[in-house]
Amino acid sequence: MSDSTTTVDITRVTREGTNQTIDVVAQEEPLEIRIEGRPVAITMRTPGHDAELAAGFLYTEGVIDGHDDLHAMAHVDEPSNPKGNTIDTILAPGVPAGRRHAADRNLYASSSCGVCGKATIDRLLVNTIPITHPIDPKPKVLFELPDRLHAHQAVFAQTGGLHAAALFDVNGKLEVSREDIGRHNAVDKVIGWKLRRDEVPIQDRILLVSGRAGFEIIQKALVARISVVAAVGAPSSMAVQLAEESGMLIVGFLRDGRYNQYGRRQ
Amino acid sequence: MSDSTTTVDITRVTREGTNQTIDVVAQEEPLEIRIEGRPVAITMRTPGHDAELAAGFLYTEGVIDGHDDLHAMAHVDEPSNPKGNTIDTILAPGVPAGRRHAADRNLYASSSCGVCGKATIDRLLVNTIPITHPIDPKPKVLFELPDRLHAHQAVFAQTGGLHAAALFDVNGKLEVSREDIGRHNAVDKVIGWKLRRDEVPIQDRILLVSGRAGFEIIQKALVARISVVAAVGAPSSMAVQLAEESGMLIVGFLRDGRYNQYGRRQ
Repeated sequence: MSDSTTTVDITRVTREGTNQTIDVVAQEEPLEIRIEGRPVAITMRTPGHDAELAAGFLYTEGVIDGHDDLHAMAHVDEPSNPKGNTIDTILAPGVPAGRRHAADRNLYASSSCGVCGKATIDRLLVNTIPITHPIDPKPKVLFELPDRLHAHQAVFAQTGGLHAAALFDVNGKLEVSREDIGRHNAVDKVIGWKLRRDEVPIQDRILLVSGRAGFEIIQKALVARISVVAAVGAPSSMAVQLAEESGMLIVGFLRDGRYNQYGRRQ
Repeated sequence: MSDSTTTVDITRVTREGTNQTIDVVAQEEPLEIRIEGRPVAITMRTPGHDAELAAGFLYTEGVIDGHDDLHAMAHVDEPSNPKGNTIDTILAPGVPAGRRHAADRNLYASSSCGVCGKATIDRLLVNTIPITHPIDPKPKVLFELPDRLHAHQAVFAQTGGLHAAALFDVNGKLEVSREDIGRHNAVDKVIGWKLRRDEVPIQDRILLVSGRAGFEIIQKALVARISVVAAVGAPSSMAVQLAEESGMLIVGFLRDGRYNQYGRRQ
């Protein structure tokens, strides 16, 4: 355990049966980066080294040119937000207005589109609507999903690092799969495919993603009212939190005839 | 080969020697999503199914509520941009102004922070400054980097899906490593660590990332003037393009005593 991880109660499911246990997931929380009080970015990050993250971000985004442009950085969380998820930056007086205001009109966001454009961290979880029509696929159906997706992917996609997302019905029949260099884009593509057929919300489908399930994926699935998200990789802490609050089932580490259940209480 | 891949000339390096060959990389290009002419998002994506991507994005971001809100979508590229990287959306008249303008003040961006806040796609590559002080680490130094980073990572990080980034000198000595659930955040943290020590630009270091090397990573490294970026995974097409234009060396698929060289001409 470290600051970058947290524990959650899970159900571990294998071909032999299930058991209740505790799992460690990567900590994921939003960091709001401000310049002299103005929010310029919210990024989903693992807490720790926040000043380095904010300094590196402002530098690689062209707002500051180096150490001399940075007068001070400090966490400035409101009392309602005690965990240190807001960091403010005072720029040196010499930083030109052009760069100073380059970030002014746009709220940046990086790993999470679910976060972009939200004015403050407090509003991130505001729209969590409980799942009302959950589906409950059988373990033997879930075990087979990765192979079924795999069979649909081109050889390159399997080896070259493209992410895949797919929708299956509760019996494991593949409906649509899409690939993209961005995991959330693959998810947007399958959800967009359904929307263009006038088939959203998507209450009776399992969403499978080839990689990890972070906040952004769960947030997108939740907007589409998808009640089961399966991932070959790990979920993040905030993904699990959102699933618990909404009643979504996250099926994590789905491979080799086993998985972990997070979120929805069984 | 498909529309989602492209070929590049590379040098393959193993412990036995080197040879020139051709590699296939995942296609990565920016898609600008507009609502009635106004840019609301730029996302780095694999071309194809753009209307689905844009529809899914607008839905999961809360701009549209379903199929009925979408009147029409079409590629609307300028003559200078023939590849179909701009898609415009006409919303149905009934979409409330609140949602219609929710996206109005903020340029979203998803997989790439290097892209956020840039007004148009044409400006993405404007600031490509050639590398002037390249370093040239020996293959035997590069082969050892993943193990050296691995030795620094906690067990959880190795298994649980945290991304890592690290800086090494030309002899392979590890200077700093950071982990994060977001790959670009790990990169911002190591660059920010150097900046806060007043040690940017970072011309004499190798940046190693634990996953893939997409456009966002290469763009951030280039701002910091890093001349060698090594990745355990694959680079994207746009990462290779940026490296070729700037003279950066990308060391891709660095594992098991071998790697592929992209970008800088040897």
